[in-house]
Amino acid sequence: MDDDLVWRPLDEQARLIRTGEASAKALAESYIARIGRFDPELKSFMCLNEQVVEQAARIDEALRRGVECGPLAGTCIAIKDNYLTGDLPTRVGTRVGELQFSGPDAWVVARLRDAGALVLGKTRMHEFAWGATTPPVRNPWNADCVPGGSSGGSAAALAAALCSAATGSDTGGSIRMPANLCGVAGIKPTFGLVSRGGVVPHSWSLDHAGPLSRTVKDSALLLDVITGADPSDPSSVAKRSEYASACGARIDGVRVAVIANYFTEDVSEDVQRCFDEALEWVRSEGLSIREHRVPSLRYGLAAIFAIELASASAWHDRAVQDGLTAGYTNDVRDLVDMGRFVTAVDYLHAEQIRTVMCREMAAIFSENDLILTPTMPIPAWRVDQDSVRIRGADRDVLASSWRFTFPFNLTGLPAMTVPAGFSSDGLPIGLQIVGKPYAEREVFRVAHAFEQSHGWRTARPPRFS
Amino acid sequence: MDDDLVWRPLDEQARLIRTGEASAKALAESYIARIGRFDPELKSFMCLNEQVVEQAARIDEALRRGVECGPLAGTCIAIKDNYLTGDLPTRVGTRVGELQFSGPDAWVVARLRDAGALVLGKTRMHEFAWGATTPPVRNPWNADCVPGGSSGGSAAALAAALCSAATGSDTGGSIRMPANLCGVAGIKPTFGLVSRGGVVPHSWSLDHAGPLSRTVKDSALLLDVITGADPSDPSSVAKRSEYASACGARIDGVRVAVIANYFTEDVSEDVQRCFDEALEWVRSEGLSIREHRVPSLRYGLAAIFAIELASASAWHDRAVQDGLTAGYTNDVRDLVDMGRFVTAVDYLHAEQIRTVMCREMAAIFSENDLILTPTMPIPAWRVDQDSVRIRGADRDVLASSWRFTFPFNLTGLPAMTVPAGFSSDGLPIGLQIVGKPYAEREVFRVAHAFEQSHGWRTARPPRFS
Repeated sequence: MDDDLVWRPLDEQARLIRTGEASAKALAESYIARIGRFDPELKSFMCLNEQVVEQAARIDEALRRGVECGPLAGTCIAIKDNYLTGDLPTRVGTRVGELQFSGPDAWVVARLRDAGALVLGKTRMHEFAWGATTPPVRNPWNADCVPGGSSGGSAAALAAALCSAATGSDTGGSIRMPANLCGVAGIKPTFGLVSRGGVVPHSWSLDHAGPLSRTVKDSALLLDVITGADPSDPSSVAKRSEYASACGARIDGVRVAVIANYFTEDVSEDVQRCFDEALEWVRSEGLSIREHRVPSLRYGLAAIFAIELASASAWHDRAVQDGLTAGYTNDVRDLVDMGRFVTAVDYLHAEQIRTVMCREMAAIFSENDLILTPTMPIPAWRVDQDSVRIRGADRDVLASSWRFTFPFNLTGLPAMTVPAGFSSDGLPIGLQIVGKPYAEREVFRVAHAFEQSHGWRTARPPRFS
Repeated sequence: MDDDLVWRPLDEQARLIRTGEASAKALAESYIARIGRFDPELKSFMCLNEQVVEQAARIDEALRRGVECGPLAGTCIAIKDNYLTGDLPTRVGTRVGELQFSGPDAWVVARLRDAGALVLGKTRMHEFAWGATTPPVRNPWNADCVPGGSSGGSAAALAAALCSAATGSDTGGSIRMPANLCGVAGIKPTFGLVSRGGVVPHSWSLDHAGPLSRTVKDSALLLDVITGADPSDPSSVAKRSEYASACGARIDGVRVAVIANYFTEDVSEDVQRCFDEALEWVRSEGLSIREHRVPSLRYGLAAIFAIELASASAWHDRAVQDGLTAGYTNDVRDLVDMGRFVTAVDYLHAEQIRTVMCREMAAIFSENDLILTPTMPIPAWRVDQDSVRIRGADRDVLASSWRFTFPFNLTGLPAMTVPAGFSSDGLPIGLQIVGKPYAEREVFRVAHAFEQSHGWRTARPPRFS
């Protein structure tokens, strides 16, 4: 029973704990035991909350006494290591000890605790969220492969049932890429919907906080709790809605768009097959699919590189001046050094491209409710692999990895990844569902229907079942 | 009568024309005659509207027939040469013929014409609005002196009664500085209140469009007409109010703040005397004056330089690539070249300083209604003068010139200059009145009361009376 409980959706875990059919203490103990057994290989956690079993027992006790403990009471959330936590250390994936990150709980962490959730531990991330591989974390579906990044620890832990759900942050795809490669769900909400208060910044105008979960409804439940305006993040807005209730609503009449340029280029055959199957499902549901073009995507990589490099380097400027970047890993130090040479003219042109892209996307949304794309052009790659062969051409894995996710960081649109099949090698492949600003309900509605019709939520990486 | 009419406030001109007591045709003819007489020396106009007398005659005719012609019917507005005009050429102050600027009337020009105003001509400006002197325009109060810039032609024309009112644009002080140095009123409205649609950009996030006029109420009347949201300027907002009706309202209870750092440094004795007299008037009206500090002003010059240099150079990037900047005047070409070397990291740090400054100003406005400062630390300087002695120290005139105006471009707050006295050499000195966002009514209310109590509006440069 308990070993099964760890695989259940957070939604069901919370219900069983609330009704007394399951025990929060037993769930926390099971996760701790599984982490002890599996994490030496996966390396998804940076540190654990030593008090979690005791805190879970207190939840059980309070519920027995009839105390209201919140909608997430007793569930065990893994927190990405760039979220500040009052009771656990925060390292943001760096080994440079001179850099200290401390403070009270981040907004999202505080909201989760308010809702009764337990913080299970902090998950490993690509250093400073500036990368897509998250060494040394491994992919539960194939331990020779990367879990993706930068929220790689959160995705790997979730896919191996080492937690109920997890938090991530997404600047160019850092929630959606690892969720996609590890076969779980994850959403980058509309820019501003979820506060980044207490999340160590990477690139202010691109950073988003959001959840990863095993089911679509779990992400919606978490969003029900973590949205809201936070004075400590001036970008955050009071636009919260009810999200979980959208899961299960009818989807007829939804107008679906696909983008006929850029998202059709350099897509691996396995990914194309899964995407075509997803569109078949859309048609089988009687929904319309229209093709559009977004010409500015041609300049998208230049735009996000200029903005992300520059703003990350602005944030690391003090560390550069203090000589601390010498201790960064090579790839991150190179990016920080490169970012110092982006000119303000480049930056402003990049912001102009971004404005054009927002307008082109808005034009699509004037006639459609959702855009569907593959989440990534390729499935997970081996940790030692730096190029991948796509339809006869060698492509850089890092350049390929975020091609389909970063446009929605530039435009701030809500974008969710949901499992959509497997490669011939048995690696997960995801579908990306993109909505209008603040139309997360629409995204969840269709993502949930897609998930229900496919039953991917029962898929477990064989070695961790 | 006609020669007196040219000096009257636009407000009175419009009323006399509407009632038939004065003729629009005679007014236009008088201005054309005065321009013919005085402008060979002042050089305030780039070109004249050859149809203006005919258009004025049609206004007279329509009014005689009882046709409603708009609140500004028959008044003669001088348009700064960076506003596009459908019927007159636009040169943006440059002699580089390869650069073409054409299109329909700018938003502000179209609104003025809708209100019955006549476009008298285009006024000379500092090349691309990137400077504070506007050669070869001269100051009507002393033809050896600069009129200020970049709207120098508008201010000089207005001060010499060569037009009813004028438009300007203000990126670091380009409305308020020439208005101040030429002894007229001018307002930089809240960022977004007046559309920049059809105004050739200088620095997107700092540019403001606004009026210059001989009286405070005339600026308010013009704002009544030119505010409103314009789809062609995404920064413009629908926040219009009624402004002219604020002129004459009681001012008791208004809470006045002064800034006790930065605005107290390197102020010439004449300017300090006029400012002290203005504060005496405030006290005599029974209003409170509180002192505050804005520590971030220490970094203000670095911030506006990084932002303005970078965004101007981003706009001129194409001209740089096409080799056209070789034809720019030396000072403007140097600024464009310098701006290419601002890094994006500098730019982002500048935007952070700006955010801090906005917060510090907001803190002052949480307890006060207005901030008063001198408009500039110095009166007009000679055209060949590049340093000025202030209290025993030599200061660069250009660096001094915009010190008190640019903080309100960074913060986007509404800021008006109103004549406040004269230097010992007989040169005009202004008072700057700054309000909360969109609180232009409050600014006009106090500016009008100040003006009425002093009667500066009757001051005429001796040689042009």
